[in-house]
Amino acid sequence: MNTKKSHGEKTLQIQEVGPRDGFQIIEQFIPTEIKLETIDLLIKSGIKKIQVTSFVNPKAVPQMSDASEIASKCVMLYPDASIFALVPNLRGADNAVNAGLNEIAVVLSLSESHNKANVGKTVADSIDELKRIKDVHSSIKIDVDISTAFSCPFEGEMEISKLVELVGNLYEIGIRDMTLCDTIGSAYPSQIVTAFDTVLSEYADVVFNVHIHDTRNMGMLNTYLAILHGAVGVQSSLGGLGGCPFAPGASGNTATEDLVYMLGAEGFDTGVDFGLLLDAARFLKEHVDGNYSGHHITIKS
Amino acid sequence: MNTKKSHGEKTLQIQEVGPRDGFQIIEQFIPTEIKLETIDLLIKSGIKKIQVTSFVNPKAVPQMSDASEIASKCVMLYPDASIFALVPNLRGADNAVNAGLNEIAVVLSLSESHNKANVGKTVADSIDELKRIKDVHSSIKIDVDISTAFSCPFEGEMEISKLVELVGNLYEIGIRDMTLCDTIGSAYPSQIVTAFDTVLSEYADVVFNVHIHDTRNMGMLNTYLAILHGAVGVQSSLGGLGGCPFAPGASGNTATEDLVYMLGAEGFDTGVDFGLLLDAARFLKEHVDGNYSGHHITIKS
Repeated sequence: MNTKKSHGEKTLQIQEVGPRDGFQIIEQFIPTEIKLETIDLLIKSGIKKIQVTSFVNPKAVPQMSDASEIASKCVMLYPDASIFALVPNLRGADNAVNAGLNEIAVVLSLSESHNKANVGKTVADSIDELKRIKDVHSSIKIDVDISTAFSCPFEGEMEISKLVELVGNLYEIGIRDMTLCDTIGSAYPSQIVTAFDTVLSEYADVVFNVHIHDTRNMGMLNTYLAILHGAVGVQSSLGGLGGCPFAPGASGNTATEDLVYMLGAEGFDTGVDFGLLLDAARFLKEHVDGNYSGHHITIKS
Repeated sequence: MNTKKSHGEKTLQIQEVGPRDGFQIIEQFIPTEIKLETIDLLIKSGIKKIQVTSFVNPKAVPQMSDASEIASKCVMLYPDASIFALVPNLRGADNAVNAGLNEIAVVLSLSESHNKANVGKTVADSIDELKRIKDVHSSIKIDVDISTAFSCPFEGEMEISKLVELVGNLYEIGIRDMTLCDTIGSAYPSQIVTAFDTVLSEYADVVFNVHIHDTRNMGMLNTYLAILHGAVGVQSSLGGLGGCPFAPGASGNTATEDLVYMLGAEGFDTGVDFGLLLDAARFLKEHVDGNYSGHHITIKS
């Protein structure tokens, strides 16, 4: 299997989501300067796209209450990088734009029940909200995160036809950048392959990214297969930080540094320096107590 | 990617090595009855081949000092399973046979420096020893574990031509069952694919198994690729128990239960009941303090 050949001419981009997906489940507030220092180390390692925060209700997620400060500082400090944030609704988008962001990721779920639980709306209502965001903020880049793209904690495995339908609906309103998210880490290899093959065969001009949780130890495998089958961007979390306070083993995304090591060994050019990235992961682990699933981070050199 | 199709008609066999590879690095002696109870739970889950111990110098590895008792009891209790043990030399083989085993795995390394460190011999001397074992114990089945088949802690990445040469030497003396071991967990996907494709193209009548350590988070991925590229037996360790006391992150083999879950999701028939296997892993974790890398074992149900 010649991975370079399989991957064609596409550029593979590491999209670090740790400052959002990793940090959001940490109960104790992480000092803003530690967050900024981590982001700085990520940038220094060569990461070009970072989801630095989310604009959500600070009462629901107090950890993200410094979203505006984080976003505005990062936009100012790193003009050459794609600094973006997750938003669940128009209000979040307004705040993101006010903080100076010109790229956001709007999150909605493939499954009705998860969308209801996560953003309190039907999927149709979330799409309407997305349209409003697009209308109001027509000049900024909008990615869409499709949560529970493979399976849902309430509805189980999702049908590929439902995914294709949602991708079609998003396409119709002009979305060309979508991330298929394995929110609960239970996607399996052939499901990943079928999903990417199918959506890409129908929507070849969409940029599809992959976002995998490592809950069942299939994070590296599923991410690798998604890349071979057309994923352009890989979302991952520094140190593999993440998880759920109610399920200690429900780990976060696959650790960015572990992915970068594997991709480097396979000859992919990610533009990221593994050693500097590992330094960033070690800095984070030293300063933020959490559930780290990364492997390199614990190897003593 | 249709895994069933890719895997052809071959039977996929889970070969549990935890009672040897997992237990050997535990400093505190695990009571023999706990070892036997773990093996019993493994058998009940449907595992058909278990490396129950190793016949090594008990002064060097005190944890394995009950090898004869473990082996003889397992042979008596599980006549329908393949009960086998690791041996480094003729003396070990003698003891294994005296304990009633009719299958052993003789270990040698692809790299000279690791073979010297591990069994105190040159590779050529290890092959001579293997010949003696075959001559003396002509009626028992002999597998060969090729350690450092992909890379060596002292010599770095191993050349595929060296591996093919060693496989050829083993073939010449009649070995038809070999396990390619990624001893230090640094093999990468395309290396695995190339190795299995190459040795199988030259020695199609050899049964090749795979034995991967998960040190760099590539355990599941590399094992999966080895299976797609012809590995018949998969060696893994219950709970992912293992590692090195001097490198906390240098984890053991990929957790057997995580592998069985993935393979089940992919439609492989391993004959193993995932739920019962997870029970076995939880029993082990409850009774033996160690470095567990398995993911399912920590998910709260």
